[in-house]
Amino acid sequence: MLVNGVPMRTIWRGGDRVSIIDQTRLPHFVEMLTLTHYEDAVRAIAELHVQGAPLIGVTAAYGLALAMRTDSSDAFLEEACEQLVRAQPAAIHLRGIIMQVGAQLLACPEGERGEVGFLLADALAQEDVECNEALGGHGLALIRQAARRNGRVSILTHGHAGWLTTVDWGVATAPVYKAAGEGIDVHVLVSETRPRNPGAALTAWELSQQGIAHHLIADNASGHLMQEGRVDMVIVGADRVTMAGDVRNEIGAYLKALAAHDNGVPFYIAAPVSSIDFACSDSQPMPVEERAGRQVTHLAGMDAEGVIRTIAIAPSSTPALNPACDVTPARLVSGLITERGLCAASATGITALYPDRLTDH
Amino acid sequence: MLVNGVPMRTIWRGGDRVSIIDQTRLPHFVEMLTLTHYEDAVRAIAELHVQGAPLIGVTAAYGLALAMRTDSSDAFLEEACEQLVRAQPAAIHLRGIIMQVGAQLLACPEGERGEVGFLLADALAQEDVECNEALGGHGLALIRQAARRNGRVSILTHGHAGWLTTVDWGVATAPVYKAAGEGIDVHVLVSETRPRNPGAALTAWELSQQGIAHHLIADNASGHLMQEGRVDMVIVGADRVTMAGDVRNEIGAYLKALAAHDNGVPFYIAAPVSSIDFACSDSQPMPVEERAGRQVTHLAGMDAEGVIRTIAIAPSSTPALNPACDVTPARLVSGLITERGLCAASATGITALYPDRLTDH
Repeated sequence: MLVNGVPMRTIWRGGDRVSIIDQTRLPHFVEMLTLTHYEDAVRAIAELHVQGAPLIGVTAAYGLALAMRTDSSDAFLEEACEQLVRAQPAAIHLRGIIMQVGAQLLACPEGERGEVGFLLADALAQEDVECNEALGGHGLALIRQAARRNGRVSILTHGHAGWLTTVDWGVATAPVYKAAGEGIDVHVLVSETRPRNPGAALTAWELSQQGIAHHLIADNASGHLMQEGRVDMVIVGADRVTMAGDVRNEIGAYLKALAAHDNGVPFYIAAPVSSIDFACSDSQPMPVEERAGRQVTHLAGMDAEGVIRTIAIAPSSTPALNPACDVTPARLVSGLITERGLCAASATGITALYPDRLTDH
Repeated sequence: MLVNGVPMRTIWRGGDRVSIIDQTRLPHFVEMLTLTHYEDAVRAIAELHVQGAPLIGVTAAYGLALAMRTDSSDAFLEEACEQLVRAQPAAIHLRGIIMQVGAQLLACPEGERGEVGFLLADALAQEDVECNEALGGHGLALIRQAARRNGRVSILTHGHAGWLTTVDWGVATAPVYKAAGEGIDVHVLVSETRPRNPGAALTAWELSQQGIAHHLIADNASGHLMQEGRVDMVIVGADRVTMAGDVRNEIGAYLKALAAHDNGVPFYIAAPVSSIDFACSDSQPMPVEERAGRQVTHLAGMDAEGVIRTIAIAPSSTPALNPACDVTPARLVSGLITERGLCAASATGITALYPDRLTDH
């Protein structure tokens, strides 16, 4: 997607050097970072310079390649795998990528591990781009239908599942970028998504860079805008989709799903295969992490002089509760948009699209 | 209620001097202002040093008394009325109070207008306190029932309808203060209420000062906490209640009502008589004002050095949509808590409590 008018990816390679966009500086500053040692990849993951499970996974794979350029021994490979996993110990996708690529490298002769590492990382990056683009194509079909009915199509987002979380296209944004590319008049209502505000900081920045019409809204405004008929569909990402079709997502998605249901607005989940938990077949509760209360009581942003500052919005004596996610029950989900097509948020729907995945369990 | 451990009202009089709490400085600084001329009252209203329709009305009444101390002529009374209305031209309650008190003063001999003005304002203040305290008593009955079932009672708020918007007790908070005073173990989940965050700034400050257990939450967290059974009831204020029982409220109340309904949590509206529009008998749509987008893209708060700063949380190229209110349909409201008792959010319910009000229309 575009950055200052130039098509870019979130991570790219020139020989043995890997570059990323420093996401901790967005939306106020656009800065790039170069990773030349695997420790740079560890730091990029640990310090949130890269964000989003797909991009973190690809960054980790490049980290292993960089490690193998320094020392291609088994011992160093093991050390690099351990350090990369420890950069975000709770990240399941990161751990999975490290185990997969680590095993592939271990099976290679030592002398080839650097070169093979880069090729494996390149392939993972390309796979991510193709998956998101395919998902975008299936979502585009829904937007095209709405455009035939309404002309302009207003799409509400929640959280941040944009291209910055992936190598390119994003997940919930891929249908929007596809539609805009086809000349459809799309307009995005960007929910800021308190408390961390990734919508305000990152989704809004992406859309702005891409020249797509959008308005930021407080999460609270979503219901009213639906009551007024100003939302044609909701498309959000997913942290995890169970086989029952229940969806764990950034906190507040459940409220938007309720409002969509109450107003007859379709509520779609952009769910690539990596977000579907084929092992979670019944409606067992999904755990929800509680984060630091300071994320609610304090906010960071840029002041009028261009300085990034953190401010308190509540009395210092007030504590906060900060659940990270909520679960939207399948009954409120109009459908899943996957890289293989659309399906119902149910075991039947998912099974029909992914018969090959179910034999594992 | 308590400020630094001392029982206070939001506005009080010592002879011909009127004092207020400067609400623009809360929650970070507690400062008082003295109003000695009617222009001070105009400024206090226009610059939001006082907030909330009931408190603004009482401040305006004191403003008229102060004006009459300077010059008790008909011409000056008319001038003062005009200036006070112009301090917030859209405020219907303010206009009503000025018309009422202005007419009463005009009917007085000039020599008595100063003294009568202060007595009328004192009476309005006392009436507000008694109305809120009565409402609090009726809400207390609901909390007492919940306490018998659950022990600790967790109450979710939205917006700010606390004692700072009134002379004392507040509206949605009155039942909470009554319950705490009776020794019931109440816990308040304070929704910050984006975009203006009056929950984070003012409701949280009030509860903190009063020593009532509370946690601030992002509005987005309300649904999840209800799904988890961590909310026993919702009590919110109302900007306006129609005879159909529909409620216009600070933006986002509708989403909390949907979540309460979906989870079997009672959703009560604290609605003193001043918020009920007896003339609005059918389900005619209530207009919703759109406010400046800057309220969404920028936030003010205190930095680590104790300086109040305003920061941007979105790219400068991103515009915002900012509807001020939404309408919660009567079907989602469990009941109205008024100063006369509890009733259903319906024409039948309201008529039964206020038969005397209906003859007007």
